[in-house]
Amino acid sequence: MFGAIEAGGTKFVCGIGDDRGRIVDQITIPTTVPEETLGRVAEYFQNKAIRALGLGCFGPLDLDPASPTYGFLTSTPKLAWRGFNILANLRRRLAVPIAIDTDVNAAILAEHRWGAAQGLHTALYLTVGTGIGGGILVEGQILHGMMHPEAGHVIVRRAAGDNFPGVCPAHGDCLEGMASGPAIEKRWGSKGRDLPLDHPAWDLEAGYLAQGLVTYICVLSPQRILLGGGVMQQADLFPRIRQKVREMLNGYIQRPEIVANIEEYIVPPGLGTKSGLCGGLALAMKATEARKEG
Amino acid sequence: MFGAIEAGGTKFVCGIGDDRGRIVDQITIPTTVPEETLGRVAEYFQNKAIRALGLGCFGPLDLDPASPTYGFLTSTPKLAWRGFNILANLRRRLAVPIAIDTDVNAAILAEHRWGAAQGLHTALYLTVGTGIGGGILVEGQILHGMMHPEAGHVIVRRAAGDNFPGVCPAHGDCLEGMASGPAIEKRWGSKGRDLPLDHPAWDLEAGYLAQGLVTYICVLSPQRILLGGGVMQQADLFPRIRQKVREMLNGYIQRPEIVANIEEYIVPPGLGTKSGLCGGLALAMKATEARKEG
Ligand SMILES: Nc1ncnc2c1ncn2[C@@H]1O[C@H](COP(=O)(O)OP(=O)(O)O)[C@@H](O)[C@H]1O
Ligand SMILES: Nc1ncnc2c1ncn2[C@@H]1O[C@H](COP(=O)(O)OP(=O)(O)O)[C@@H](O)[C@H]1O
Ligand SMILES: [Zn+2]
Ligand SMILES: [Zn+2]
Repeated sequence: MFGAIEAGGTKFVCGIGDDRGRIVDQITIPTTVPEETLGRVAEYFQNKAIRALGLGCFGPLDLDPASPTYGFLTSTPKLAWRGFNILANLRRRLAVPIAIDTDVNAAILAEHRWGAAQGLHTALYLTVGTGIGGGILVEGQILHGMMHPEAGHVIVRRAAGDNFPGVCPAHGDCLEGMASGPAIEKRWGSKGRDLPLDHPAWDLEAGYLAQGLVTYICVLSPQRILLGGGVMQQADLFPRIRQKVREMLNGYIQRPEIVANIEEYIVPPGLGTKSGLCGGLALAMKATEARKEG
Repeated sequence: MFGAIEAGGTKFVCGIGDDRGRIVDQITIPTTVPEETLGRVAEYFQNKAIRALGLGCFGPLDLDPASPTYGFLTSTPKLAWRGFNILANLRRRLAVPIAIDTDVNAAILAEHRWGAAQGLHTALYLTVGTGIGGGILVEGQILHGMMHPEAGHVIVRRAAGDNFPGVCPAHGDCLEGMASGPAIEKRWGSKGRDLPLDHPAWDLEAGYLAQGLVTYICVLSPQRILLGGGVMQQADLFPRIRQKVREMLNGYIQRPEIVANIEEYIVPPGLGTKSGLCGGLALAMKATEARKEG
């Protein structure tokens, strides 16, 4: 058995599962301050006889193994966690191999092993929830680069007449600032869940998300895009986004994936809401595989 | 010796060089119609005793070896070349292994072997010339994905008061539409080369290019960005772009590359104007290496 953590700004979901992505047990722990939250996390995994643990974590994170701050949370707006070495803290508490990556990189890894990105070499998992973030597989490798993608912070063009300032603390009106769950709530004074299907919020939302997708398609040329997270539970968003992406690309990318089969190109995650937690399992498996190789 | 072609919409540069990226001979052939241009290309390489040939080509291209139109130019605005199988045509004319990739993928490959991307695993080469295009190395692999990046066509935000419609035939005011060489010329009625350093064109240009770079940084997290092409010969653009990128990121990406050493992060190509042709050599070397493995 492997241990998995999906660490978010509001909750830590911890679980146990096997090497086929099946979760057999899980609990949810609220995100408070590091010592308290991680104390409860460690308590959960104690005596669970896991071989390894995978941590898919909110960010930004330092994931450069050569860096002195490897495994630290860096410029996160969750102040109690800023500059905190989450990896070392967990390693001190639990005597198993632990692998860390971003929550969305974990999710695309799980989707690649067991979900809607199976058989692909280049794919994007985008979560649209409290934040917007992308996990990216390119030519079979998880993209880290200098740090890791911050795909939610790309530049978007303001819709005509839209004067909403945006909610991103760093950029205001980047994609995350304009289209995350909190942006919807602040803009309309009501949570997305409570806005009716024919509310103008959804056309605007689809337009901003489609802009993000067009940018990702131009830069990454993914073979498929998976859209998850709370906001995407408004399932009506999918057809609207697909249509707008096709309109915005305007025939420039002549590929059947876009021109003919966009329903199979922009899709929900294959693992439903389990991509993140299964991603923890996939990371844990990687940790043991890396050990074998090393 | 290896053969190299840098195939562009206005000219084909052909050359011969060694496995250390040294070009020993080259010629330039104007891009007219395929039969004529490729006839002259083949004539040049005849009797040159090359082991393999690398073709860095304008696009869009079909680079999927499993596709029935592999090696074809697809939706290029150069109508005489649209739907033309450039790879098969060259293979018919020249009896050596030939590798094809985009012009900018060839360039980043050469920069990785011999230039300013040596030792990096994730880097971007952006050309700003007649078009804007990106060649991308990610975790040591050249990014193709579904097709290949079309990084020049990302969405940018219009500068306040800018009513220029843009020159991209597909999108109008995408990055390429707003900031390519022809966009500068159309907007100001004068070629970039002839606009003085204190002309407002340059601040606007730097602003649009910086937007593109911010987007690439958020999506790809490159370890370095190389800016080449005719427009970047206006060397004053570099400091302006660096400053605007830093302003736009607004502290969100806390990495020394950006916060402290941006002069080494956004740089000219190490091979100067030879990245493309050297890229042909690098592709040719890959063609022989692939053969050895296969
Ligand atoms: N059915 C829904 N329709 C629209 N928005 C929703 C829906 N359900 C949840 N949300 C929004 O999604 C956000 C939470 O996203 P979620 O992915 O569940 O969590 P997190 O991003 O914190 O991990 C909240 O802003 C919430 O309002
Ligand atoms: N010194 C310069 N300053 C600004 N723009 C320039 C300069 N030199 C060339 N250009 C512009 O660059 C474009 C050509 O780009 P180049 O990279 O040389 O060719 P291509 O993109 O066709 O391969 C033209 O639009 C030209 O006006
Ligand atoms: Zn932002
Ligand atoms: Zn365009």
